[in-house]
Amino acid sequence: MTSEAAFIRALRAIATDPAARGLTDDAAVLELGGARLVLTMDAICEDVHFLADDPPATVAWKLVATNVSDLAAKGAEPRGCLLSYALTDADAWNEAFLQGLQQACEFFAIPLLGGDTVRPKSGAGRNFALVAFGEPRARMPVPSRSGARSGDTLWLSAPVGDAGAGLALLQGKRQTDSPAQHQLVDRYRKPMPRVDLGVALAPYVTTMMDVSDGVLIDSERLASASELAAVIQLDKIPLSPAFAEVFGEDLEARLFAASAGDDYCLLFTAASDAAGALERVARNLHSTLYPVGHFMEGKGISLMFDDVAVATPDRLGFEH
Amino acid sequence: MTSEAAFIRALRAIATDPAARGLTDDAAVLELGGARLVLTMDAICEDVHFLADDPPATVAWKLVATNVSDLAAKGAEPRGCLLSYALTDADAWNEAFLQGLQQACEFFAIPLLGGDTVRPKSGAGRNFALVAFGEPRARMPVPSRSGARSGDTLWLSAPVGDAGAGLALLQGKRQTDSPAQHQLVDRYRKPMPRVDLGVALAPYVTTMMDVSDGVLIDSERLASASELAAVIQLDKIPLSPAFAEVFGEDLEARLFAASAGDDYCLLFTAASDAAGALERVARNLHSTLYPVGHFMEGKGISLMFDDVAVATPDRLGFEH
Repeated sequence: MTSEAAFIRALRAIATDPAARGLTDDAAVLELGGARLVLTMDAICEDVHFLADDPPATVAWKLVATNVSDLAAKGAEPRGCLLSYALTDADAWNEAFLQGLQQACEFFAIPLLGGDTVRPKSGAGRNFALVAFGEPRARMPVPSRSGARSGDTLWLSAPVGDAGAGLALLQGKRQTDSPAQHQLVDRYRKPMPRVDLGVALAPYVTTMMDVSDGVLIDSERLASASELAAVIQLDKIPLSPAFAEVFGEDLEARLFAASAGDDYCLLFTAASDAAGALERVARNLHSTLYPVGHFMEGKGISLMFDDVAVATPDRLGFEH
Repeated sequence: MTSEAAFIRALRAIATDPAARGLTDDAAVLELGGARLVLTMDAICEDVHFLADDPPATVAWKLVATNVSDLAAKGAEPRGCLLSYALTDADAWNEAFLQGLQQACEFFAIPLLGGDTVRPKSGAGRNFALVAFGEPRARMPVPSRSGARSGDTLWLSAPVGDAGAGLALLQGKRQTDSPAQHQLVDRYRKPMPRVDLGVALAPYVTTMMDVSDGVLIDSERLASASELAAVIQLDKIPLSPAFAEVFGEDLEARLFAASAGDDYCLLFTAASDAAGALERVARNLHSTLYPVGHFMEGKGISLMFDDVAVATPDRLGFEH
């Protein structure tokens, strides 16, 4: 039972309430009187979700942003959050974290409402958890991972790969002299989920989630929950100019971008005739949507590049 | 800024939303449409809130129970919880934890709705966080720490000191051959908050919280939030037969019981003429309430034993 997947299977046997959505979704959806509440909880650990020398303000930002990203994918507007903070004696670190927390809570309009501060025994790596809750718009559906239909188009709401590229640069796995490296590192440290976009897209999608582990693995999760197969056109994976400058735009670069994770943009399916409506929504919010594939009858994920089939890599993304 | 108190002061400058209750309460109270939601988050760390050799099922129980205890103190019925779990390779430990989690969720009728599983770097002590949310009864007030009036009686909903005694026995600070030791250890490991009692008492109290850090320090917190002074009659601190058998009933024993913490019973104030109503509520729920002091104009906490003033100890309770 050592893998996270096996542990979550065991949890699923406990989490039988309908609001838990079988733990297959990114958030719980609770009905209370006339209100609906979307709840999500994400923890981040040193050396797993952030690096020990990441600026503490960006660690706080990432903690808030990753949770807000889940709310955005459920079309929910943030209403509040609670923080579990592991306090150490590093005063300057704690203060900088709090500054980043305040900035992020203000930026994403998510008030901090409470939490718990604990002081773990020394030697433990830093780790923090945040719970965020939000409300979907009245009478609007809360998108889940299941519900796609064969023929639906698969969309991304932003270029991907920047954060993964930034991490590779920070880890020394790639080097560059380009000034674009700063932008890539910034994208790793400060995810920018788009709540406005998630809320506006929610009425039109058949499934939606945020990309945290990589486009390929997350697409497979949507397909699997919908009992369908996903076909991804790697040549359509959107790349930022900064990414293209440092990593290129060839098949290898696009495979990297589609399996790197930490993008925190939206991945969703919609009926093919919804394209016009989706693009109008995006234009109104000064954004662009990218069709990257489609769903069909079957199982698993297949990859294409310029209309040629490409072998699926062993590693589709990051499981953390 | 190294103390938890200083850190929370800094957090308070961020948590300015009214639902945060200034972070001086045990829970946030969120209004959503017609519904009200009480939210609380408690984390527990190895060697701080539980011992490394505590049975894993009881660690899970304690995590759920300490959060449910906060809901009970706010008169809120549990509606759900989210778990942040730090996964290690200790399969048997994880499985036993999950069994305890399921038992506790069923016992306290709090469905597990989601959460996050992370795998921290090795060497970190185990730590877990839980968020619990619940609903107060319609039109009923949600008790806070402030609002007591001079002359209010201070009440406890159960004998205290058992959990602290159990911890002292587990740590080898006290020894006994008495079979009562098992009951005391069990009370340390498996807190039994009473939601039914909290919900039923809520309409009658002027303040309410749960005793997590010790009766003395928690009474001082209620008094301070209400801008009053607390007078505690130590001879009225209720003790269980098991506690009395192993630790005695003298002043020292009662001071220990009132400053040990981990009791997770209810501590509240009410107008003196509410005593009859309170005792009827308790009787209907097969419970007993214990008046242990009163609030008056002034500041701080003073202790009496058989009508004689007793010096206030340096350590009023456990700050964790």
